[in-house]
Amino acid sequence: MSHLDAVLAHLDAQAEPALARLFTLLRIPSISTDPAYAAECRAAAEWLAADLRGIGFDAGVRPTEGHPIVVAHDRAAAGPSALFYGHYDVQPVDPLDLWESDPFAPALITRADGLKEIRARGASDDKGQVMTFIEACRAWKAVTGALPIGVSLLIEGEEESGGKHLPPFMQANADELRADIGLICDTGMFDPHTPAITTMLRGLCGEEIVITAASRDLHSGMYGSAAANPNHVLVRILTDLHDEHGAVAIPGFYDGVPELPEALRAQWAALDFDASAFLGAVGLSVPAGEQGRSALEMVWSRPTAEINGMGGGYQGAGFKTVIPSKASAKVSFRLVFEQDPHKIRAAFRDFVRARLPADCSVAFIEHGSGRATTFDTAAPAFEQARQALSREWGREAAFTGSGGSIPVTREFRDALGMDVILAGFALDDDRIHSPNEKYDLESFRKGMRSWARILAALAG
Amino acid sequence: MSHLDAVLAHLDAQAEPALARLFTLLRIPSISTDPAYAAECRAAAEWLAADLRGIGFDAGVRPTEGHPIVVAHDRAAAGPSALFYGHYDVQPVDPLDLWESDPFAPALITRADGLKEIRARGASDDKGQVMTFIEACRAWKAVTGALPIGVSLLIEGEEESGGKHLPPFMQANADELRADIGLICDTGMFDPHTPAITTMLRGLCGEEIVITAASRDLHSGMYGSAAANPNHVLVRILTDLHDEHGAVAIPGFYDGVPELPEALRAQWAALDFDASAFLGAVGLSVPAGEQGRSALEMVWSRPTAEINGMGGGYQGAGFKTVIPSKASAKVSFRLVFEQDPHKIRAAFRDFVRARLPADCSVAFIEHGSGRATTFDTAAPAFEQARQALSREWGREAAFTGSGGSIPVTREFRDALGMDVILAGFALDDDRIHSPNEKYDLESFRKGMRSWARILAALAG
Repeated sequence: MSHLDAVLAHLDAQAEPALARLFTLLRIPSISTDPAYAAECRAAAEWLAADLRGIGFDAGVRPTEGHPIVVAHDRAAAGPSALFYGHYDVQPVDPLDLWESDPFAPALITRADGLKEIRARGASDDKGQVMTFIEACRAWKAVTGALPIGVSLLIEGEEESGGKHLPPFMQANADELRADIGLICDTGMFDPHTPAITTMLRGLCGEEIVITAASRDLHSGMYGSAAANPNHVLVRILTDLHDEHGAVAIPGFYDGVPELPEALRAQWAALDFDASAFLGAVGLSVPAGEQGRSALEMVWSRPTAEINGMGGGYQGAGFKTVIPSKASAKVSFRLVFEQDPHKIRAAFRDFVRARLPADCSVAFIEHGSGRATTFDTAAPAFEQARQALSREWGREAAFTGSGGSIPVTREFRDALGMDVILAGFALDDDRIHSPNEKYDLESFRKGMRSWARILAALAG
Repeated sequence: MSHLDAVLAHLDAQAEPALARLFTLLRIPSISTDPAYAAECRAAAEWLAADLRGIGFDAGVRPTEGHPIVVAHDRAAAGPSALFYGHYDVQPVDPLDLWESDPFAPALITRADGLKEIRARGASDDKGQVMTFIEACRAWKAVTGALPIGVSLLIEGEEESGGKHLPPFMQANADELRADIGLICDTGMFDPHTPAITTMLRGLCGEEIVITAASRDLHSGMYGSAAANPNHVLVRILTDLHDEHGAVAIPGFYDGVPELPEALRAQWAALDFDASAFLGAVGLSVPAGEQGRSALEMVWSRPTAEINGMGGGYQGAGFKTVIPSKASAKVSFRLVFEQDPHKIRAAFRDFVRARLPADCSVAFIEHGSGRATTFDTAAPAFEQARQALSREWGREAAFTGSGGSIPVTREFRDALGMDVILAGFALDDDRIHSPNEKYDLESFRKGMRSWARILAALAG
């Protein structure tokens, strides 16, 4: 029996105590956004550090101006090293009355299909995923006395509450944290049977515009249509954002957006993504974006402009014949490849100003921005990890994109100069951030085994 | 000295007791929308009925399911008869802290320009205007012992709170109320020196649309741009409402909308309306509606489509990258001449449905509607009243349009089969419905004299 086989057998044999440890962590209500739970956040950090020390890591709870960060090292192994990132904090639990059980009393539920799920706040996001990695390390140490590669862990407590103390911490401790490759377990499977490594994350640029026309709200009987109505001005500008083919019409918007590399396109096509099921789950059926693009391309590799919010005039019950003074909209752009958020923001503002009629003014409110992240999957670690995942799940692991943004990946690159392998075992139906969050027992079990394999694979 | 000259001289001589009577009425806080003031509404009605009985009217306070209605008759005169309409109820007074004096402690204020104004809630809307008519009747009776024509009064108490009990009352008492001509004193001057008779009132059609796309709010990282965004759908539909020349683009919208009769156009042009001042007062400078139309035409005789309210997605502080499930808008159409509100509503709904993309549904919520009112100014009473006003003010009185709607005018026509002369002395700066409402003492003084003249003129 190879070392890896022995480690996998150990994980299977020790599944119950592993689950018990996860339950202990899940019982700590480490809600980071609510100051009332500051002590519980610290308790979660302390528990993790103690657990890691118990299996031989040099682990500590490091202070920040917010919640502390757990840092642990075991760099004894020769060869490459990895820095694992996860977070111990969780989302709030409201509305509490929609939970079928206490969110901090983890329960193992057997579903109608016979599969088991771990139900608790944080089960999937991210305590369950963090523990898949720690349990893999524990098994390697238990079976062989050592890890196959050097491993550090960085487990923060503010991922669900802005995470603003992590970047300066990473910058200040870059020499200590830097490794050959980053590992993050905070993403999902492509589908319940197909593991995935997320190699493209879209960036974001958020912008709010406020159009002002008259100096006060007007009566539409007295002033309509002589007075400029900012609702009319706003809808016209927002309509112009997209051309008749669904493409974004801001000049220069697609600068730095190449067509998808042919290899990736072929791989994605092979995934046989079920757009009908993806859209059907939310009551839709037709991809609404750029014509001639697949739904998968739309959400993984194409930039977007979305009106996330807009409002103007009277929105209460009944009717009010008002011409409002102001109307506003919040617009976000998802960015890909080399799009520059600052250029996009400037181009959008020019676009709005060029459409502003007489008598109207516009104010711009800047919201967050970040570039897209695209990892070079030609680097050996990506292929090693992919093969390890494929072996565990009996199906070729996919290099996928992700419509969302995971800001810490930028920090790995910017502060530490590292690429990151994003591998996770969450499923679309895990209800993260929602009542009755769950993590499939299968995700937990095969997740531990996956990391055991990846650690071996990265040793080369 | 003619009878009329004697009556006018009497009004001038008795200006102080007339003002004292108005102040007495203004002291009654007859806020109709607030049930706490029901007794005060009744008190205002009782006071008016008693005052009218005091000058020889057969006057009573008539119950409705809401606030009572004052009805008074003096039909002794031979020849034509008139039914005067006004209202004794007033708007609420919040925000009270913006009032410079107690809204129900009427005060006579001398302005910087030396002119005096009556400050109180209801001074202009409509107690002051109602009393101009009653004082004119009082003077005729005092000087000649009789009125020049038969006069009835109908003074309601729910004009500021929906007025739903008036139409059935008018229908039920049509035979009693019917007269040769209606008189309403609830409108304004064209400008402080030019009296006006409003002969065109726009109609209204209010409609709300709710666009639904996905079955729940979506994360724009995960679903944008593959999922239909109802904000995008809504802005596109609303933009299409107007063509590039500012005209309403709904098919058939302009059916029943003739060009303005040449005579009226010439008269309006002669008014030398100051569009810059009209728009400048609210911080605007360019008429925003149909190109090639004057601002006056836009607000008096052209139909409009206005977005009075709209909203979709996240409108709170900060930013949320949501694709909402729903977006909605409240749209109103101001109607003119023979436009049919029911046809307009149906055409609008077809217009929206024709633009609804796959995966979206729309719900329509019907709000109020009413046809436009246009009085035939060729009827002798209009010219008689116009000449009377012109003589009092020393300037040709204008036949004007009004952007707003005065629903009771429809009831005069529909329930009683009568035309209505809308003559009032309010000014644009009277702050009706706002803190520090006022009525110029000159409006009150010359208003009384104007009605004295009109009563004489209508006798033919």
